[in-house]
Amino acid sequence: MPPEASWIILHNMIHAAFIELSTKGFTDIVNITEEIKSILSSSSIRNGQMCIFVPGSTGSVTTIEFEDGVISDLREAIETLVPKDKEYKHDKRWGDGNGFSHIRAALMKPGLTIPIIDRHLTLGTWQQLVFIDFDNKSRSRSIVVQITGE
Amino acid sequence: MPPEASWIILHNMIHAAFIELSTKGFTDIVNITEEIKSILSSSSIRNGQMCIFVPGSTGSVTTIEFEDGVISDLREAIETLVPKDKEYKHDKRWGDGNGFSHIRAALMKPGLTIPIIDRHLTLGTWQQLVFIDFDNKSRSRSIVVQITGE
Amino acid sequence: MPPEASWIILHNMIHAAFIELSTKGFTDIVNITEEIKSILSSSSIRNGQMCIFVPGSTGSVTTIEFEDGVISDLREAIETLVPKDKEYKHDKRWGDGNGFSHIRAALMKPGLTIPIIDRHLTLGTWQQLVFIDFDNKSRSRSIVVQITGE
Repeated sequence: MPPEASWIILHNMIHAAFIELSTKGFTDIVNITEEIKSILSSSSIRNGQMCIFVPGSTGSVTTIEFEDGVISDLREAIETLVPKDKEYKHDKRWGDGNGFSHIRAALMKPGLTIPIIDRHLTLGTWQQLVFIDFDNKSRSRSIVVQITGE
Repeated sequence: MPPEASWIILHNMIHAAFIELSTKGFTDIVNITEEIKSILSSSSIRNGQMCIFVPGSTGSVTTIEFEDGVISDLREAIETLVPKDKEYKHDKRWGDGNGFSHIRAALMKPGLTIPIIDRHLTLGTWQQLVFIDFDNKSRSRSIVVQITGE
Repeated sequence: MPPEASWIILHNMIHAAFIELSTKGFTDIVNITEEIKSILSSSSIRNGQMCIFVPGSTGSVTTIEFEDGVISDLREAIETLVPKDKEYKHDKRWGDGNGFSHIRAALMKPGLTIPIIDRHLTLGTWQQLVFIDFDNKSRSRSIVVQITGE
């Protein structure tokens, strides 16, 4: 239980940064943990929250242990759940062939919010932040990273 | 990297609005982007965050390109992943027949947080906000939209 | 639409608490609603947000009606979507046998943010908060609960 004395009066600040990435598409899973930590450490925020958001309908962010084996497993699981080569109505109408990308992104959602305590994100030891590019071509991506706090 | 000078001191405000919807159930996917933008533009918030939350255990919010083809694809993908006509223990016990609705909503989660920068949500060009009603009947829904910022 | 008069100037505060749990793993679904409400009511926050976050790569939080039938249904649905006994590359490399746990957690994501209005979380009547432990052994877990607001 939080004792009243431990509450912190916020002299609140807000800042938005952007992570620029070149991605390959087709469930390209990119470790963005170092970029994220660098944005945090260059700020003066001690306690607050970080909101990471993908402005686009074919990408997502989540956390995972960034290890080759499990990254490959995640790509395979996503392919099983929402197959690339099924017929999608989106592709019939628009012909851009990325119906599977839209479905994967809608299911996994575009954002993630992480608490910041004593200048650190509350990530576990083997928990990294990843951007997943579900599109069907290489792209330049700009991920929004917004920090609020004191 | 955020230069210190670009940090904004918050004169922080908070407001909650509600979006009232009549929905049809059975993975009814409703575009709420205009309602959301209207709530934002009627406020004086320039920088902050919007938290959209479904108070109920058979609905969710996410983003997608709101185009008939891909909306139909999403409904089909959800039906494949969590079939409506499987036997659910929830239905045996409670007889309301919406076991599939609860599972879909628990997997897709009830909320979403979006950064606001310079009076705009950081959505991509073809990225719309949708409420998904997973229940098995038509309903009146009230979606919570809470904005914080300066 | 929010009338300007209803906006609240924040004398913003932030506090982080932790929920300590002993979990059994294997998609152990634990109702944490009472712990969460207790943290909120022991605070002086009237309006704001609560961010719940799992610091680890084999757990998640979501909402569901906490009723034996549907809890069992959710465990079965997750087993169908990401089977435990498939071959995972993570297990071949690391031998800890919890590849399925990592995939489930990455897909369901580690966090959830809930609005607080007039001292209450905006949960529906039959909507409870749960922690899901996807790991393959019993563990001690510490869930981060961060509240911001006025």
